[in-house]
Amino acid sequence: MELRIRVLFTSVCHTDLIYWRGQDKAQRIYPRIFGHEASGVVESVGEGVDDLEIGDHVVPIFNGECGKCVYCKSKKKTNLCEKFRVNTMKSTMSSDGKCRFSTEEGKPIFHFLNTSTFTEYTVVDSACVVKIDREASLKKMSLLSCGVSMGVGAVWNTADVEEGSTVAVFGLGAVGLAVVEGARSKGASRIIGVDVNPHKSSKAQAIGITDFINPKDLDKPTHQRIREMTEGGVDYSFECAGNLDVLREAFLSTHDGWGLTVMLGVHPTQRLLPLHPMELFEGRRIVTSVFGDFKGKSQLPHFANQCIKGVVKLDEFITHEMPFSRINEAMQLLSDGASLRCLLHF
Amino acid sequence: MELRIRVLFTSVCHTDLIYWRGQDKAQRIYPRIFGHEASGVVESVGEGVDDLEIGDHVVPIFNGECGKCVYCKSKKKTNLCEKFRVNTMKSTMSSDGKCRFSTEEGKPIFHFLNTSTFTEYTVVDSACVVKIDREASLKKMSLLSCGVSMGVGAVWNTADVEEGSTVAVFGLGAVGLAVVEGARSKGASRIIGVDVNPHKSSKAQAIGITDFINPKDLDKPTHQRIREMTEGGVDYSFECAGNLDVLREAFLSTHDGWGLTVMLGVHPTQRLLPLHPMELFEGRRIVTSVFGDFKGKSQLPHFANQCIKGVVKLDEFITHEMPFSRINEAMQLLSDGASLRCLLHF
Ligand SMILES: NC(=O)c1ccc[n+]([C@@H]2O[C@H](COP(=O)([O-])OP(=O)(O)OC[C@H]3O[C@@H](n4cnc5c(N)ncnc54)[C@H](O)[C@@H]3O)[C@@H](O)[C@H]2O)c1
Ligand SMILES: NC(=O)c1ccc[n+]([C@@H]2O[C@H](COP(=O)([O-])OP(=O)(O)OC[C@H]3O[C@@H](n4cnc5c(N)ncnc54)[C@H](O)[C@@H]3O)[C@@H](O)[C@H]2O)c1
Ligand SMILES: [Zn+2]
Ligand SMILES: [Zn+2]
Ligand SMILES: [Zn+2]
Ligand SMILES: [Zn+2]
Repeated sequence: MELRIRVLFTSVCHTDLIYWRGQDKAQRIYPRIFGHEASGVVESVGEGVDDLEIGDHVVPIFNGECGKCVYCKSKKKTNLCEKFRVNTMKSTMSSDGKCRFSTEEGKPIFHFLNTSTFTEYTVVDSACVVKIDREASLKKMSLLSCGVSMGVGAVWNTADVEEGSTVAVFGLGAVGLAVVEGARSKGASRIIGVDVNPHKSSKAQAIGITDFINPKDLDKPTHQRIREMTEGGVDYSFECAGNLDVLREAFLSTHDGWGLTVMLGVHPTQRLLPLHPMELFEGRRIVTSVFGDFKGKSQLPHFANQCIKGVVKLDEFITHEMPFSRINEAMQLLSDGASLRCLLHF
Repeated sequence: MELRIRVLFTSVCHTDLIYWRGQDKAQRIYPRIFGHEASGVVESVGEGVDDLEIGDHVVPIFNGECGKCVYCKSKKKTNLCEKFRVNTMKSTMSSDGKCRFSTEEGKPIFHFLNTSTFTEYTVVDSACVVKIDREASLKKMSLLSCGVSMGVGAVWNTADVEEGSTVAVFGLGAVGLAVVEGARSKGASRIIGVDVNPHKSSKAQAIGITDFINPKDLDKPTHQRIREMTEGGVDYSFECAGNLDVLREAFLSTHDGWGLTVMLGVHPTQRLLPLHPMELFEGRRIVTSVFGDFKGKSQLPHFANQCIKGVVKLDEFITHEMPFSRINEAMQLLSDGASLRCLLHF
């Protein structure tokens, strides 16, 4: 049930930085091939795979869909597969618990996020491979592996934002901007972008924010400013910064009674949710979104078509391109907040 | 927009105990007339009230519905009214900030929860008064003021439990048992009741639990036992004990991927929600329910009819009856866990 994929394009996401640096000590699993946003072509097909062929254009997904487990078959809405759900601790293949990569001396090199795309060839379970229309630009389709699907999906599926709604987006990296694009595509009447980096404003405006707030320029908490701007708070807020204090601001910036906060950031900290139980009685809700609540194999092909048709615009997300050999530079650019997605090609 | 109501029946709820005792120091507002579960007859009608008449059978509700504010009119689902939502700090009438009760010396006696029903006559805003079919037993209808509506509504509206679902209920007081009754009425396939008081088991079985767990009898955490019993966890859990450690057990006892925990308990503590942000990525959700997400004035008459028809059974909830003069005894019975609802009559 595995495939070997020739990776053509790959890019760096904030999650790669977190685990490459080993910010969470329990998660230092080295040597390991990072990378999970990519696109490529099927190079060879393992036994049992019947939905993919050599030459197919594909996008790997870190949150797989086997189609057979109680989760995948559940009528209830979950996109977490029993075996192939996102799991940063998983470092080997499901079938035999072994690695498909090794050093020249034969020592194992570990896998990352079901995908490991910082390599010319990778081996991936078929549950984590999505076939993409050949008409599509593989370069752009690589964005669907993670950030763009997460952000747009959080708006379309998790929050189900309606036309005319008001939205606040905290953190304007690729994930946050994908949320902005998702909200724009649904006709949100107001999209407030929040980032401590003032350089994030112009790109965000090009994509669709109607207002920009730099918390450093305010003499009051951000949520207070947002409540003033929106007669009591936005309908939806999205946390895309990976910071719990930001999460609390996002929570408080929604309207009481019906506000919904979607948490997309990864929080590698020991701290608990910074919310008091009685605060929930004000009618504000908080949920997370894994991979934008897309069931990868069954729903991503349709989403790809929406991108091809221009319902969702991908052009703004690729800010840099360079050969794979310059990957260290690409990681530095993201770390500095100077890039959205830097596309690396082999 | 106010009415004077002749209270015929009233009963004691756990929330009365909390605020009467002043467990939360900031909330010690005395002298005050407590009580919020009741039924009675309209005795006189103030200016501007056009939906109620003298002689109408009514039930007061602590979470009102004015019908005119942005919350009441919002298409979005909230049952929190701008002025008349549940508010334990509110101690006077909305129109003039004054009290309708006073001592013989003319000093104000404060209101409680928009209702104040431990009195022969009370004055209530029309937003907090629901007209009930004259065919109904006013004695039983008093249960709709709070506990039963909260519990059944949490199942019907907040969680929207489907036939065949599995459910766990933590705390088998009147609220928890109303959740059990709601789950039974929806055809839940399994209803696991959890309480540290072993005497709660038989009544809960009469209403509809299929299994009883006393955490004190276990040599493992309750959630672990529940996961073993249900192939990974229940679909829905309800916290009706007012204890944050119980809330965490309730959260962990649901199935990952789709489990939903509804918090009904009141938590007068400084502690934060005992959840780590990354735990939400396992697909378990937590929400609260205020007054069972019923919009009181517009939806309770229909709910009352469901009770009259026997879709929801109220008989088991009234365990004691006595004249109002014995109210101290009624409060002690609830405090001891010896009663569900003790009906006091004038
Ligand atoms: N669950 C997943 O698989 C998954 C996938 C992708 C990204 N993520 C997470 O989503 C988050 C965003 O990812 P990204 O790739 O867009 O990262 P990014 O670094 O490009 O963007 C983060 C943005 O947040 C801003 N920011 C930082 N602190 C802030 C603060 N206090 N207030 C406001 N803004 C602040 C930064 O300036 C930056 O623009 C990260 O936490 C990442 O780990 C999770
Ligand atoms: N929001 C509101 O307006 C509102 C209205 C009604 C009730 N409530 C709250 O709902 C909760 C329940 O109310 P009630 O009237 O049913 O109270 P109750 O005292 O009759 O019932 C609580 C039950 O929880 C059980 N319990 C206590 N500790 C436990 C533990 N550690 N594990 C398992 N069970 C435990 C008790 O034995 C008891 O049976 C309370 O917190 C109350 O304040 C809120
Ligand atoms: Zn990513
Ligand atoms: Zn699966
Ligand atoms: Zn009550
Ligand atoms: Zn209102």
